[in-house]
Amino acid sequence: MEKTVQMYEGKAKKVFATNDENLCIVSYKDDATANNGLKKGTILGKGVINNRVTNHLMKLVESKGVPTHFVEEINDRETVVKKVSIVPLEVIVRNIAAGSLAKRLGLEEGTKLNKTVLEYCYKDDALGDPMVNEYHILAMDYASKEELELIAKYAFMVNDILTDYLKEVNIELIDFKLEFGRLADGTIVLADEISPDTCRFWDSNTKEKLDKDRFRRDMGGVEDAYQEIMKRLLGE
Amino acid sequence: MEKTVQMYEGKAKKVFATNDENLCIVSYKDDATANNGLKKGTILGKGVINNRVTNHLMKLVESKGVPTHFVEEINDRETVVKKVSIVPLEVIVRNIAAGSLAKRLGLEEGTKLNKTVLEYCYKDDALGDPMVNEYHILAMDYASKEELELIAKYAFMVNDILTDYLKEVNIELIDFKLEFGRLADGTIVLADEISPDTCRFWDSNTKEKLDKDRFRRDMGGVEDAYQEIMKRLLGE
Repeated sequence: MEKTVQMYEGKAKKVFATNDENLCIVSYKDDATANNGLKKGTILGKGVINNRVTNHLMKLVESKGVPTHFVEEINDRETVVKKVSIVPLEVIVRNIAAGSLAKRLGLEEGTKLNKTVLEYCYKDDALGDPMVNEYHILAMDYASKEELELIAKYAFMVNDILTDYLKEVNIELIDFKLEFGRLADGTIVLADEISPDTCRFWDSNTKEKLDKDRFRRDMGGVEDAYQEIMKRLLGE
Repeated sequence: MEKTVQMYEGKAKKVFATNDENLCIVSYKDDATANNGLKKGTILGKGVINNRVTNHLMKLVESKGVPTHFVEEINDRETVVKKVSIVPLEVIVRNIAAGSLAKRLGLEEGTKLNKTVLEYCYKDDALGDPMVNEYHILAMDYASKEELELIAKYAFMVNDILTDYLKEVNIELIDFKLEFGRLADGTIVLADEISPDTCRFWDSNTKEKLDKDRFRRDMGGVEDAYQEIMKRLLGE
């Protein structure tokens, strides 16, 4: 598998074309941004951790019936994935109120939600990724009704699988963001990453934050938190 | 029917208890606010127009199968309505992109939406009436699943009824905001008002704005626009 041209560079990852038109190589960076790009920095070792944690969790959800873009980890920072066109939605799953939800609805961070909440944001940096609902998505054709039903189904499945799995390593899954893509034939698969960049992980007992909120909120101990997640999930 | 104590004073209306515990009297004011209360002013004659236009449209939708709180207009500014506890949601129906939707999704105002869009905002001035979706509403218990289904059904019915009706008087219904209430026995009815304060009405040919946007945006001709709506709907 050979990288050819760089197709895309995002905030935390580069994506390269390969000599197979159906496959790409994702390369994870240590760059970190927050607050819609206003805050920038580096989290040493993040690229390696996010690559390895993402692949570990992608394999887990794939084994439980959620189709993903994962193909093969080729080194610490790089992974072969199926080529997708990304559905322009951030799919946010929330079990406990935190971050923007706590602020918007006036809830104390840490409040357990009576029911799991799904939110969608339209992926558009210039617009600040505005929250949208199913009516907006269908009216604007961001996804079809059938795609949206599958995406919601998969998002709840991922939540159930990860919540159960993380409990065993004493991590509470507060909320997380998923992205989905379409394969060439239109099949919807889970894409992007599942990492401390995209999830809120709290220690189940101490409620210590083990995720990117330490960076967003200048809490210190950022690298240690990412290392701790890798240690609990991958035993190293 | 006698007014007893004032139960509530909002931005544009007062609500009084009556000697019948199941009925209230709504009294419409000329006060106008915009931008979540930051902009304040007076629109002369607005109270009379909104009272009469609301009642006219409430009777219309009631006659077509949407239950409402309307009972009887007792004078130019005051109407007897059934007592409700308000479901804490602003229910917004959009046919054409305008206002906050146009801004948030980067659409030119006036863009026809492929499908009618329904939005919900949680009614809370201190939080700035944040947009919520059905998951938030159920998790926070703002309404039950059965109530929400009825509310959505009624909102679409009101849209169809008003769009057709207004077309005959050369008005295009761009978007509008509804509120629903629960009667003592839990029955969901349409409450609040349907007026140039809560709807965007454009002249079908000239696209001239005949609603509160003239006040919000300091366009002038505010009173004339409200008068024009009353003239087209009530012939006076």
